[in-house]
Amino acid sequence: MTKGRLIGVGLGPGDPELLTVKAVEIIRAAPVIAFFAKKGRRGNAREIADRWIPEGRIELPLYYPMTTEVSFEDSRYIASLRAFYEAATDMLAAHLDTGRDVALLAEGDPLFYSSFMHLYVRVREHFATEIVPGVTGMAGCWSRAGLPMSWGDDALSVLPGTLSEDDLAKRLAETQAAVIMKLGANLPKVRRAILRANLLQHAIYVERGTMAGEKIVRLAERGDEEAPYFAMILIPGNGRRP
Amino acid sequence: MTKGRLIGVGLGPGDPELLTVKAVEIIRAAPVIAFFAKKGRRGNAREIADRWIPEGRIELPLYYPMTTEVSFEDSRYIASLRAFYEAATDMLAAHLDTGRDVALLAEGDPLFYSSFMHLYVRVREHFATEIVPGVTGMAGCWSRAGLPMSWGDDALSVLPGTLSEDDLAKRLAETQAAVIMKLGANLPKVRRAILRANLLQHAIYVERGTMAGEKIVRLAERGDEEAPYFAMILIPGNGRRP
Repeated sequence: MTKGRLIGVGLGPGDPELLTVKAVEIIRAAPVIAFFAKKGRRGNAREIADRWIPEGRIELPLYYPMTTEVSFEDSRYIASLRAFYEAATDMLAAHLDTGRDVALLAEGDPLFYSSFMHLYVRVREHFATEIVPGVTGMAGCWSRAGLPMSWGDDALSVLPGTLSEDDLAKRLAETQAAVIMKLGANLPKVRRAILRANLLQHAIYVERGTMAGEKIVRLAERGDEEAPYFAMILIPGNGRRP
Repeated sequence: MTKGRLIGVGLGPGDPELLTVKAVEIIRAAPVIAFFAKKGRRGNAREIADRWIPEGRIELPLYYPMTTEVSFEDSRYIASLRAFYEAATDMLAAHLDTGRDVALLAEGDPLFYSSFMHLYVRVREHFATEIVPGVTGMAGCWSRAGLPMSWGDDALSVLPGTLSEDDLAKRLAETQAAVIMKLGANLPKVRRAILRANLLQHAIYVERGTMAGEKIVRLAERGDEEAPYFAMILIPGNGRRP
């Protein structure tokens, strides 16, 4: 019997119209739709894809073991996450083994800072896979902000807000354009790094880009109150332009 | 009379199925479809969008003044490009003034290293605008290569191959994941920089990702013969993974 394929489907930044034509086709055709969620919630991925999922599909929610942010350095957290990824891989494999294709939804792009990758590298040892790329969250944010991000010979750095203040300040000073992701409680530290790199006047804060409740403000006009984890800061390049 | 809107439409990496649902809707509805091309050619953007453009639309090709690569430092080249962007802006404005919306096609994402931006910043002084983000060329390439690019706290650097060898080597040594774009004749220099950063064994070369004629090989297995300008090199991160 032919085994099923795992298809990683990029959902884009949040607006359901920003799925690709191919992503919609895969979601409509796949017998099993899998997605990550926090326990007790439907989850953002399932929400974004909602209008494209036909009635009667097998749905496979993969519930994260913890709902609050814990330090990644905590060894119990690592062990718990590993057990989760392994159990989730087994849940996918059970369907793939019977010949069913599984579409695993991934917010943004499947191979760019996604949970999808943790299952992908495990599943592809045993099953065929395919990736449908998606519009990244950052592209959704800069399109809504109307911000030309990188010109000509600009280098663009994507930096997690989890880096140290020194590291962030150094990297910001050496790049032309930057996106700082994973803000959450890191915002005050990120702001200090941006100030040290003398870039505050160019920094734009975007929360829930392309979705309901979207907020776009200059960072200089926003306080240091905690940001959502998926909020980001955009610092556009200013490279050559005739 | 209401003036028209300029809509920057991201086309994605090349596969026509990788346009977003929204991009297809805009292309189907817009009375004028504008796109960049080299003189005497239909152009890659027009080609990618072909199946989505209804019969009888007004088409507005914007022909670049030069078809061969000239040093950007050449002042005649800068003057010629500036004149081209200004003339193209006038061509868009003529339609916008009569109330017609214009969809300007942009390969990849409209605000990420695109020619679109040069018209966008001029047109938006006078007309309403909208951006439909697209899947970037690099996301198309890493999806076809099946390459998880950035994990957890990885920083990802997007670097133009036009940078100096020293600059590239330094930036590569300091990042976790990298995409090197605009290869063309820069490939031998880029390879030397990758070797200096001791990353050759991780570097993947991708040409025409998601399109006919796609090539994906380890850089170590490819010679230094000139690459297409839009080929790229991917160096994936290897960050935390439980």
